[in-house]
Amino acid sequence: MTLAVRYTAARTLTTAPAETRSPGPGEVELAPAYVGICGTDLHIFHGDMDARVAAPAVLGHEMSGRVMRVGPGVDGWAPGDAVTVMPLRWDDTCPACLKGHQHICQNLDFIGIDSPGAMQQRWTVPASTLVRLPDALALDRAALVEPTAVAVHDVGRAAVREGEKVVVVGGGPVGVLIALVARAAGAEVRVVELSAHRRLLAEELGLTAWNPADDDVPALVREWTGEAGADVAFEVSGAAGGVDTAVEVLGVRGRLCLVAIHPRPREVNLHRFFWRELTLVGARLYDRSDFERAVALVADGTIPADRLISKVVPLTEAPAAFEALEGGGDVMKILVDCTADAYDTEGAAV
Amino acid sequence: MTLAVRYTAARTLTTAPAETRSPGPGEVELAPAYVGICGTDLHIFHGDMDARVAAPAVLGHEMSGRVMRVGPGVDGWAPGDAVTVMPLRWDDTCPACLKGHQHICQNLDFIGIDSPGAMQQRWTVPASTLVRLPDALALDRAALVEPTAVAVHDVGRAAVREGEKVVVVGGGPVGVLIALVARAAGAEVRVVELSAHRRLLAEELGLTAWNPADDDVPALVREWTGEAGADVAFEVSGAAGGVDTAVEVLGVRGRLCLVAIHPRPREVNLHRFFWRELTLVGARLYDRSDFERAVALVADGTIPADRLISKVVPLTEAPAAFEALEGGGDVMKILVDCTADAYDTEGAAV
Repeated sequence: MTLAVRYTAARTLTTAPAETRSPGPGEVELAPAYVGICGTDLHIFHGDMDARVAAPAVLGHEMSGRVMRVGPGVDGWAPGDAVTVMPLRWDDTCPACLKGHQHICQNLDFIGIDSPGAMQQRWTVPASTLVRLPDALALDRAALVEPTAVAVHDVGRAAVREGEKVVVVGGGPVGVLIALVARAAGAEVRVVELSAHRRLLAEELGLTAWNPADDDVPALVREWTGEAGADVAFEVSGAAGGVDTAVEVLGVRGRLCLVAIHPRPREVNLHRFFWRELTLVGARLYDRSDFERAVALVADGTIPADRLISKVVPLTEAPAAFEALEGGGDVMKILVDCTADAYDTEGAAV
Repeated sequence: MTLAVRYTAARTLTTAPAETRSPGPGEVELAPAYVGICGTDLHIFHGDMDARVAAPAVLGHEMSGRVMRVGPGVDGWAPGDAVTVMPLRWDDTCPACLKGHQHICQNLDFIGIDSPGAMQQRWTVPASTLVRLPDALALDRAALVEPTAVAVHDVGRAAVREGEKVVVVGGGPVGVLIALVARAAGAEVRVVELSAHRRLLAEELGLTAWNPADDDVPALVREWTGEAGADVAFEVSGAAGGVDTAVEVLGVRGRLCLVAIHPRPREVNLHRFFWRELTLVGARLYDRSDFERAVALVADGTIPADRLISKVVPLTEAPAAFEALEGGGDVMKILVDCTADAYDTEGAAV
């Protein structure tokens, strides 16, 4: 018997037995090892995405695991292979696909939101979604590949260049990953984050972090940049004030990369966009090249994934982990260990 | 005795005698021929820019004219030369200039706003601002070079390519010029404009114009583009609804070029920027290459400047022309003829 974590109604997750089935043509059955809990999963848990997510729904799209069974017609994969999944299925026929932007297909199936996700002990996905992991990469760290791919995509959309000055507004997991990827691209980076815990973690990773509640961030940026303003800002906070800060810190021809989801329209200082000839670039998801680059960055330690993992919980404790994350608090990434139904008091799988 | 039109207080212009002075080193004295009245001039007239404009101030920055006297150290210009002026002076030392963006110098002197403009019979400017006009180009048409340079810059900022579908929101002078420049670049163009008069003019120029009050513009764009959405939108209306329309009509990876001035923050559907990976690009003013391209486009008739000139008034009637423009109404561009103090009843200079 295998278990799955299912979203059944707003603020309700259950861990219960799941049916398994043989992989069909072109499919692969995986044994998920670790699954990260993402901000989007929390939105679903809050009930904010009920119009899109059909309960009961298995969540989870940041994962690592191993191939268990290979369906007919699948070449190149064998049981035991370590993999992560790029959780996108596109239709190849919509205008977005025809323009070569399959990752934002107008009929995109985002696996883990629009179809069943990874938070279960057996998971069947198209073989086309698999991304190979190096043998030396620990599977818990590999669960950070998906959010790292987001960061790689964002830094690419903003076209960050060596020597540029970059402000990341929002120092949660994705914000810190963006900061690390931008630094690896040769940028100087500042992180703006309200949580003292997250600022401390950023500082421990060698980043400079500012507190927007106490620090005059625009003044600090002016001083840092010799009155020029930043070259790039990333809006990763999702807050109205985060948008204001990101716009205000940019110098002439600065680029603002919009990463966070803002469900409601936001007031934006468009005059500043005109006056300084700023650019705003929306960034969503990733493509395969972003994913492969993310695997390399996690594997070579550029992304110190272990430092971003606050906690690992067994499958039966996933509901409690969602509750804890919802309260905010002093956490970065929580992983669900799908290989364990539960841990004993020593933290070992039982 | 020469005359100048001066802004003296909100809603007050006077035409009165002006002192002349010999051009200093590096300066040239011009005899302005025609000066266009621009939206910015109207903002000043309304009193909206009193914090920036020190009354009494001579307005006007869209001009054509001839060189009268050449100051010491000026090479390459002689009395009688037909010219227009790129009305920008930068400091060459600020961060914007050091990055090569002199046209948005952080201490820019925009001549005609920050220093005396062209709406007078003698005007002394730095020789570095002069742009040569071909002898065959009539000076009234040449007064459209400056707004055409704006349009060239905007189309360049949006990187419009051949075969792309472009929506221009706002069909006043700059909007129509953008539409014409984009069409010359090989784009298919639709203009969205409330004024029936302006729509008719756009149609007479071979453009298709939609009325946002009656037409469902997003639905028309979906139909026009086979559900793909537009490649590029220009926001030239300055209205909140114009921003909404420009965002809504864009397809995946669409580019919105922000041309209009929005003095107050606007609510923007940032979720759409994220979802479709849209880009917003601010565009302000122009550089010398834009100006030279604009001269060529007006001279070769790509821009039918004569069709955009609604009316020409002598210097003493400039105040009344501002009053008329303020009421909106059925006009595009009004030129002030600086060579004439007044016209007789037949329209000849007196």
